Amino acid sequence: MNLKEEALEYHLGGKVDIIARKPMDSAHDLSLAYSPGVAEPCVEIAKDETLAYKYTNKANLVAIVSDGSAVLGLGNIGASASKPVMEGKACLFKKFANVNAYDLEINVHSVDEIVTFCKAIAPTFGGINLEDISAPKCFEIEAALQDLGIPVMHDDQHGTAIISTAGLMNAMEISGKKFEDIKVVVSGAGAAGIASARMYRNLGVKNIILVDSKGVINTQRDDLNKYKLEFVSDTKDSTLREVLKGADVFLGLSAPKILDDEMVLSMAKDPVIFALANPVPEVMPEDVKRVRNDAIVGTGRSDYPNQINNVLGFPFIFRGALDVKATKITENMKVAAAKALADLAKLEVTDEVKQAYGVEELSFGRDYVIPKPFDSRVKAVVSAAVARAAVEDGVALLKEFDYQKYMTDLQ
Amino acid sequence: MNLKEEALEYHLGGKVDIIARKPMDSAHDLSLAYSPGVAEPCVEIAKDETLAYKYTNKANLVAIVSDGSAVLGLGNIGASASKPVMEGKACLFKKFANVNAYDLEINVHSVDEIVTFCKAIAPTFGGINLEDISAPKCFEIEAALQDLGIPVMHDDQHGTAIISTAGLMNAMEISGKKFEDIKVVVSGAGAAGIASARMYRNLGVKNIILVDSKGVINTQRDDLNKYKLEFVSDTKDSTLREVLKGADVFLGLSAPKILDDEMVLSMAKDPVIFALANPVPEVMPEDVKRVRNDAIVGTGRSDYPNQINNVLGFPFIFRGALDVKATKITENMKVAAAKALADLAKLEVTDEVKQAYGVEELSFGRDYVIPKPFDSRVKAVVSAAVARAAVEDGVALLKEFDYQKYMTDLQ
Repeated sequence: MNLKEEALEYHLGGKVDIIARKPMDSAHDLSLAYSPGVAEPCVEIAKDETLAYKYTNKANLVAIVSDGSAVLGLGNIGASASKPVMEGKACLFKKFANVNAYDLEINVHSVDEIVTFCKAIAPTFGGINLEDISAPKCFEIEAALQDLGIPVMHDDQHGTAIISTAGLMNAMEISGKKFEDIKVVVSGAGAAGIASARMYRNLGVKNIILVDSKGVINTQRDDLNKYKLEFVSDTKDSTLREVLKGADVFLGLSAPKILDDEMVLSMAKDPVIFALANPVPEVMPEDVKRVRNDAIVGTGRSDYPNQINNVLGFPFIFRGALDVKATKITENMKVAAAKALADLAKLEVTDEVKQAYGVEELSFGRDYVIPKPFDSRVKAVVSAAVARAAVEDGVALLKEFDYQKYMTDLQ
Repeated sequence: MNLKEEALEYHLGGKVDIIARKPMDSAHDLSLAYSPGVAEPCVEIAKDETLAYKYTNKANLVAIVSDGSAVLGLGNIGASASKPVMEGKACLFKKFANVNAYDLEINVHSVDEIVTFCKAIAPTFGGINLEDISAPKCFEIEAALQDLGIPVMHDDQHGTAIISTAGLMNAMEISGKKFEDIKVVVSGAGAAGIASARMYRNLGVKNIILVDSKGVINTQRDDLNKYKLEFVSDTKDSTLREVLKGADVFLGLSAPKILDDEMVLSMAKDPVIFALANPVPEVMPEDVKRVRNDAIVGTGRSDYPNQINNVLGFPFIFRGALDVKATKITENMKVAAAKALADLAKLEVTDEVKQAYGVEELSFGRDYVIPKPFDSRVKAVVSAAVARAAVEDGVALLKEFDYQKYMTDLQ
């Protein structure tokens, strides 16, 4: 059976089920779960809406909302066709962080409609994960929902930004470079590209050049939306090949195999190449290694070193945010997640991880700048870092927070 | 611990969890559930949207949508406070009919907003159960969604209508009366009252009188919405006491203990009294028995005979509708559900049911006109009847349907 056949068979009947969390075996159970007992929590919540966190599953429930306008590498395939991705995401939430998630694929596509939809469902959920919504509307939608009272995060933006930042922090440590001094080229100026560039900028990177399908985003362009204009460069370079000369970092969110040997060789010493096009990256790791051995290469794939995968982020970002009843996800919370991931990669790798990946040796270095998704320590360190940052930023409804105890409880 | 304390403790953390239906234990599993394997079902569904029934959980997934405007006996308590009820309903869907349901409590309240919301979520679900939405807007909302391509049913209306109809069919058989000849008084002209009256009328009842909080709905009233006007009577009677004289059937969906001895005694021979106010009915069964012994009494409670409970309906109506991929729930499907319930009450009661209810003897008669919720045969007979009616009405996308095999598979 090839991958297609196996994947289709795997998906028969879908991937998500509901179960009752409480006993439902007797008439007495039913009298608690439904009429008349259910009236009691209803009355309590009607008096104090925050008690929904106590008496319903809201405190551990995230909505995964997509209009199917920018799905994987498939583009605008619509709500129905995006459902397998959102169900998969719900499974990852559960598997990695024990977060419940309802996938909601919606057949409305304008900024106003999607904002209205998310506002409508806010009472049901402790958070909203926007997913696979196309740029530039994704920026406007997310921004419009920041005062909803529950965290709203567009994972396509911040997932990639956070995980690539973690890798970048460690890559800089290995090469001895500083964020202020490096030249970063981002290929692909969609949701993930813009958000990553914003995060790098917030962390001190001054020289960031974006490239989209029309070429370098520079002052000679007259077709730029306001999000791309944030990063307009005064370089005379107009092609990826030109701007890549002397670059310290390449972040690829664009298309397969667009970097050739000459481009790879033209980058600065100890270049970072995060080639995240999926499934075929902008350059294959073995093709980089063939022409130079000082590069730090990451991809989106599990079969190469340094997998830059969103699953290292969203389950734990929402885990931490939910556990302190955060009302939003702040920049500090995202940076805290990146920093926690970067720090974890510097700890000794556990046998569990080595076994899961079938390797005998693995330690911090060019081929290991980011933890592995199956490292069970990720949950505690990232969730706790995010939760602590929420408390520090004053966006947590939970007032008594013990960082060490929380991290221990998660382990 | 009293009921309040027990119910609140039972509700801690909410009642619904998500689980992955498929293996999620290895990197290979993840490569099927998420990138890259997940692209395969996405591509298939993008080509043929009906394949969402095959490759996602849509075929077994219902949305429970409420704006919290008419919850239990609590009234308009809002979206958040209604969440325990909707989660409870999701548990009942699962427990009784293995239907997955996501509860969605929404913070929008106009007809247009709720209709827009339901249209938006249609790709995600195989059906929509509207719940606890106030009359009269519930009628307009449900009507506006009948061409959505998936079944949309407001259970407060049709649940009560269907289950009370089942009881009524059997009560008429016991008393030897015909629908065409009886006088029915419905106390309470909200969602359930109007829908029940409509169903009785469709089954041949000619003399139906509705009573609301202002009195009898008759031609002297000038405060009637169009739904109440459907049942305007030319009687001179203006009070419940007056219209109840000689009535064959009382359906109570109104307020506790509003029937006194005189009113009960004024009804026709072999009266049917379905006193469904919860938790305290319009008249207690023992108070009816005290003054006359020819009555057939039902309540909404599990601790009295003849429990008229929606849980006998919605799980199986959606089970049957989903299994034949019905695009709507027709009147015939509802009547088929009622008929199946009525027929089941005439079969021998199983030991399972007797044990569950702690009774040694139970058989068709005045104290048993409707099956018990814990009768495991309900699932097969009601679901199969609904599914067959959907096929007969031409609203099923499934073309090959074997009634006997389907019913056997459900048993």
